[in-house]
Amino acid sequence: MDRSTPTAILLVSCPDQSGLVSTISSFISDAQGNIVDLEQHVDSSQKAFFMRVEWQLDGFGIARDQIHQSLETLLKRFGMQWSLHFSDTLPQVAIFVTRDNHCLYDLLSRHHSGDLQMDIPLIISNRTDLEPVAQQFGIPFHHLPITADTKAAQEEKQIALLREHRIDTIVLARYMQILSANFVDHYPNQIINIHHSFLPAFPGARPYHSAHQRGVKIIGATGHYVTSDLDEGPIITQDVIHVSHRESVSDFIRKGKDLEKTVLSRAVWYHLQHRVLVHKNRSVVFA
Amino acid sequence: MDRSTPTAILLVSCPDQSGLVSTISSFISDAQGNIVDLEQHVDSSQKAFFMRVEWQLDGFGIARDQIHQSLETLLKRFGMQWSLHFSDTLPQVAIFVTRDNHCLYDLLSRHHSGDLQMDIPLIISNRTDLEPVAQQFGIPFHHLPITADTKAAQEEKQIALLREHRIDTIVLARYMQILSANFVDHYPNQIINIHHSFLPAFPGARPYHSAHQRGVKIIGATGHYVTSDLDEGPIITQDVIHVSHRESVSDFIRKGKDLEKTVLSRAVWYHLQHRVLVHKNRSVVFA
Amino acid sequence: MDRSTPTAILLVSCPDQSGLVSTISSFISDAQGNIVDLEQHVDSSQKAFFMRVEWQLDGFGIARDQIHQSLETLLKRFGMQWSLHFSDTLPQVAIFVTRDNHCLYDLLSRHHSGDLQMDIPLIISNRTDLEPVAQQFGIPFHHLPITADTKAAQEEKQIALLREHRIDTIVLARYMQILSANFVDHYPNQIINIHHSFLPAFPGARPYHSAHQRGVKIIGATGHYVTSDLDEGPIITQDVIHVSHRESVSDFIRKGKDLEKTVLSRAVWYHLQHRVLVHKNRSVVFA
Amino acid sequence: MDRSTPTAILLVSCPDQSGLVSTISSFISDAQGNIVDLEQHVDSSQKAFFMRVEWQLDGFGIARDQIHQSLETLLKRFGMQWSLHFSDTLPQVAIFVTRDNHCLYDLLSRHHSGDLQMDIPLIISNRTDLEPVAQQFGIPFHHLPITADTKAAQEEKQIALLREHRIDTIVLARYMQILSANFVDHYPNQIINIHHSFLPAFPGARPYHSAHQRGVKIIGATGHYVTSDLDEGPIITQDVIHVSHRESVSDFIRKGKDLEKTVLSRAVWYHLQHRVLVHKNRSVVFA
Repeated sequence: MDRSTPTAILLVSCPDQSGLVSTISSFISDAQGNIVDLEQHVDSSQKAFFMRVEWQLDGFGIARDQIHQSLETLLKRFGMQWSLHFSDTLPQVAIFVTRDNHCLYDLLSRHHSGDLQMDIPLIISNRTDLEPVAQQFGIPFHHLPITADTKAAQEEKQIALLREHRIDTIVLARYMQILSANFVDHYPNQIINIHHSFLPAFPGARPYHSAHQRGVKIIGATGHYVTSDLDEGPIITQDVIHVSHRESVSDFIRKGKDLEKTVLSRAVWYHLQHRVLVHKNRSVVFA
Repeated sequence: MDRSTPTAILLVSCPDQSGLVSTISSFISDAQGNIVDLEQHVDSSQKAFFMRVEWQLDGFGIARDQIHQSLETLLKRFGMQWSLHFSDTLPQVAIFVTRDNHCLYDLLSRHHSGDLQMDIPLIISNRTDLEPVAQQFGIPFHHLPITADTKAAQEEKQIALLREHRIDTIVLARYMQILSANFVDHYPNQIINIHHSFLPAFPGARPYHSAHQRGVKIIGATGHYVTSDLDEGPIITQDVIHVSHRESVSDFIRKGKDLEKTVLSRAVWYHLQHRVLVHKNRSVVFA
Repeated sequence: MDRSTPTAILLVSCPDQSGLVSTISSFISDAQGNIVDLEQHVDSSQKAFFMRVEWQLDGFGIARDQIHQSLETLLKRFGMQWSLHFSDTLPQVAIFVTRDNHCLYDLLSRHHSGDLQMDIPLIISNRTDLEPVAQQFGIPFHHLPITADTKAAQEEKQIALLREHRIDTIVLARYMQILSANFVDHYPNQIINIHHSFLPAFPGARPYHSAHQRGVKIIGATGHYVTSDLDEGPIITQDVIHVSHRESVSDFIRKGKDLEKTVLSRAVWYHLQHRVLVHKNRSVVFA
Repeated sequence: MDRSTPTAILLVSCPDQSGLVSTISSFISDAQGNIVDLEQHVDSSQKAFFMRVEWQLDGFGIARDQIHQSLETLLKRFGMQWSLHFSDTLPQVAIFVTRDNHCLYDLLSRHHSGDLQMDIPLIISNRTDLEPVAQQFGIPFHHLPITADTKAAQEEKQIALLREHRIDTIVLARYMQILSANFVDHYPNQIINIHHSFLPAFPGARPYHSAHQRGVKIIGATGHYVTSDLDEGPIITQDVIHVSHRESVSDFIRKGKDLEKTVLSRAVWYHLQHRVLVHKNRSVVFA
C-alpha cells in the first residue's frame, strides 16, 4: 500500500442487504475517488455485513470536511454503524503500565521509529517502577496508586486526564489492575489489553503457572478489547510458541514476553489502522 | 460461508483504474444478486487491480447461461482478464505421481470425504508403485514410463489423455519428472506442484539433504504453479516446521512429508475454489 | 540417528539423586555398548529425574535376553520406574474409529510407507462407516456398536480382543465414545487420543463451534494420553493454525482436520519410539 | 531449572567413542556434584559427539579454581574440544549497530529486565543515529565511521576497544558493515549476526525486496555466527511469519523487524547460556 498520500477510511457494519458494496463504491468513484483498499465480509450465520474501504483524498471530488455529511445522507437508509477516519489524523493514545517493561519498551520503540503512527500524550501507572522508561522517551508519566478504597476516585482522575488529552485509544501494557465496568463503559472497543495466555485457556492471574502445571506444549498471548467481563472481550489477534518439558515457569515467562509484546503491538497496529470491527463480541480484522 | 446454494465466481485482473469495484458490484446488485464474498486488491507498485466476487445464483436476475455474455459486454472497455466459474461445476483434475504415496493418499482421502470438491478421472505415473493406491480408491491408473528418448512421445500421450478427460487442473503429487516447456505451455497456471523446500531456498533435487547440510533450523514446503523455469513458478502457499540438530536427513524427510501433503492440498483447495490470480509470476490468493 | 541396526532403549523415572547418569552410562559402556542417544531431564520443582538412553545391541557384551535381569539388579536401589524396549520389536497397536476418516487414512498410509513402525492387528469401531477403509488396507475390522445399555458388555469384548492380539497401544482416531474408567485403568499411558482443540481451551464436544463462537484467531489440536478425567490426561504434543473472521465453523473443521491427523500421528510416533514419560499428569517428551 | 545457585557448565565435542558420558558423569558424581542438566548428541553421519552438562557448584568436592585442571587431566585422552563456564561469570558483550533501533532496544530492554544476563561495556557504530539510545540506557557509545579507505584502520580501533573491555561476545544488531576476514578470525563463533531473511534464501542486501519480488508467502530471519563467508556461517536459530499479497515491501520490513529482534535475542540467549556448539559449519543448540 502506498501510504505517502492521505486517505479516507470508512468502516461500516450493518445487517446484510443487497447493494451495499455498489452504493459505497459508486459514491467514491462518482466523486473520482481512487480506492486503494477495499475489504468486505458477510457473516452469513449472523446475516451481518462488514466493510472497510480506503481511498485517496488527492483528487477526490468532495472536500474533506464535507465527506462526513455526504456519507450521512447516503448511508442513513441502511441502518448502518459507520465511522470515518483520515490516515493523517494521528490517534491519541494513553498507555497504562504497572511494573513489567517489555511491552512498554516495545510500544515506545515502535512509536519512535515510526512503525506505530500515534501520539502518546501520557503514560499512567499505579506504581512508579516504569517512570524512568517514560522519562527516557520524554513522555509525561502520571502515578496514580490504587487501593480498594481509592479505586473509584483514582479512576475518576484517570478519566479526567484522558479527556484532557482527548485520548481515543487506551493500551494496557501489562497493567495489573482491573478496570471497573464504569471505566470500561466510557471506552467501548477503545481499550486494548494483552493477556498472557492463549484465551480462553488460562484466564485470570498467573496463566504461565497454570500452563506449566497443566503440561501444555504451546503457550500463547492474546490481544483483545476490554469489556466488563474480564478476559472475555473480543479477540483482536493471538500468537503462540512451542514449549517443552525442559522449560520451567520462569522460562515460560521469559518466552511469553516475546509473544506479549509482539501480539500487543500487532493488535495496536490493527486498531490504529482502523482495521478492526466488532460484532457480538467477535472481531473482524481486515489484516 | 454458506455453501449450500450454488454461486457464481468472477475473477478479474487488469490495470488499476477508477470505478472497477462499483461497475462490477452494481452489475450484480442491479440484477438482484446477493454478494456472499468480495475481495479486491490493488498492487500499487504494479498499478494492477485484482478482484474476486462470489454471488448467489438463486434469485439472480440474469440466467446462468447469459451471465458470461453480459459480463463480456460490461467488461470489454476495461482491458480485463477475467474468468467466470460456477461453484457447482466440478473441476476435472488429473494427479501425476511417481513413488511416494503420502501426497496421493492425502488428496484422495480429502476427495473421498468431500473436503476437496473435484472429479479425478485419472492418475498418471511413470512408475507402477502407486497403482494399488489408485485401485484402492477406484480411480483409473495410467502407466506411462519415461526415458530421455521417449519423453516427448509420452508427453503427447499424456496430453491426449488429459484432453480426452477434459482435464483443467493437473496436480503433481511428488511426480519425479520434469515437464517439458511444451507441456507446460498447454496448461498455464493450471499445473500445481509441491516442492519439498521453502523456495527459493533449496531448489532442485534432494532439498532435505541440502537443508541438513546447511544446518537450517526450519524446513518448509512450497505449493506453486509450474512454469517452464523449474521451481520458479508463482508460489501459492508455503509452510514450515522447526527442526533441530537431533534430526537426521531421514527425520527431515519424515517431518517434511507432513508439510508436503498439507501444503499441496491447501494449494489445490485454493485453486479449486478459484481463489488464485497470477500476475507477473506472483500470486494473489484470496484466502 | 542411524536406525539400521537394532538398539535397546531404557526409560527411567525416579526421585532425583546423585549418580544416576553415571551408574547407567557406566553400565552400558562397561559392557562395550555404544550409546546413540541419551537424554535426561531433572524437574527441579518436582525433584524428579527422567532419562532415555538408547544403545546399539551389536557388540553389546550382555545378551539381549539377559539385559532386563542385569538392569533389575543394578537399578533396584534407586526406587526407579523403568522399562526396557528393543527397536526391532514392533508395538502392537489397535485403532479405534467412528466416522471421520482423515486420522485413520493418515495413520494407515504412514504405516504403509514405513513412517510408523508398528503392527495393526485390528481396527475397532462403534459404526461401520470406515469398514471400507480398513478393507482397503487389509486390516481386520470389528464392529462393536455401543449404547448406554450395552457399553459395559461391549467394552469387555473390546478388552478381550485387545488381549487376544496382545495390544500394547490403543489409538483413538476420532473415536466418538467415552471410554469407561474401568477400560482406561487397563491401559495406563497406553491410550492416545486426539482432541480437536488446543487444550485446556474448549474441552468436551463441538470445540470448533465453541472456538468460532468465542472468536479465536488460532485453533489447535492436542494429542494426549487418556485418563479417567475426560480431556484432562497428559498432553504429548499440540499444534495450531491461524484462522480469521472469514472462516466459518465448517472452515475451522476442514482446517482442523489437518492439525488433528498430523498431531495424532506425531503423538503416536513419539510413543512408538518410546520417547514419552509421564509424571503427575505431565509428559516428558524426548523429541 | 533452578538458577538460584551457581553452576558449572562443561561443553565438549569430539569424535564419537565409547565411555564419554560415563567418564564425565562419573567425574561429577564422584565429587558429589549434582547434575541439573545434561544433554548429549551423537551425529552418526559425522561420527561426532557433543555434550553439555551443568552441575551445581554448592557441595561439589573440587574447588572452583581446580575444576579446569582436573578436567584437563581427565579429558586429554579423548582428543576433545571443551570449555568450562560458570553461571555467575557474566559474559562481556559488545553491540554493533548502524541505524535501525529495534534490535538494539530489544537487547537493552532485555538486559535491563534481567532476561539477558551479560555486561555491555560498550556499543560501537559507524553512524551516530543510535547514540541517544545508548545514552538512554547509560552505555558508552563509540562512533567509528567506516569508508573503504578507513576500514582496516577502524577495525583495528574496534579490536583495541574490544580487547580493552575483555569482550568475549559481539552482537551485530543490524550493523550494516561487512566485517573483514581478519576481524572475524579474532572471534571465531563469538560474533552473532541477525540476517533479515530465512537463510539460505535471500542472502545479501535487501532481502525483503527480493522476497517480495519472488512472491513468497512466508518471510524469516536468521541468527547465526559470523564467518568470513558472508551469510554462510553456522545458523543458531530461525523463525518465520506468514505474509500475503496484500503486504508491500514496507509491510514486510515492518513485520520482519518483529522477527529480527526476537530471533537475534534468542540466539544471544542461547550463546550466553553456553548452549551452542559448532561443528563443520553447523550448530548443535541444546535448547
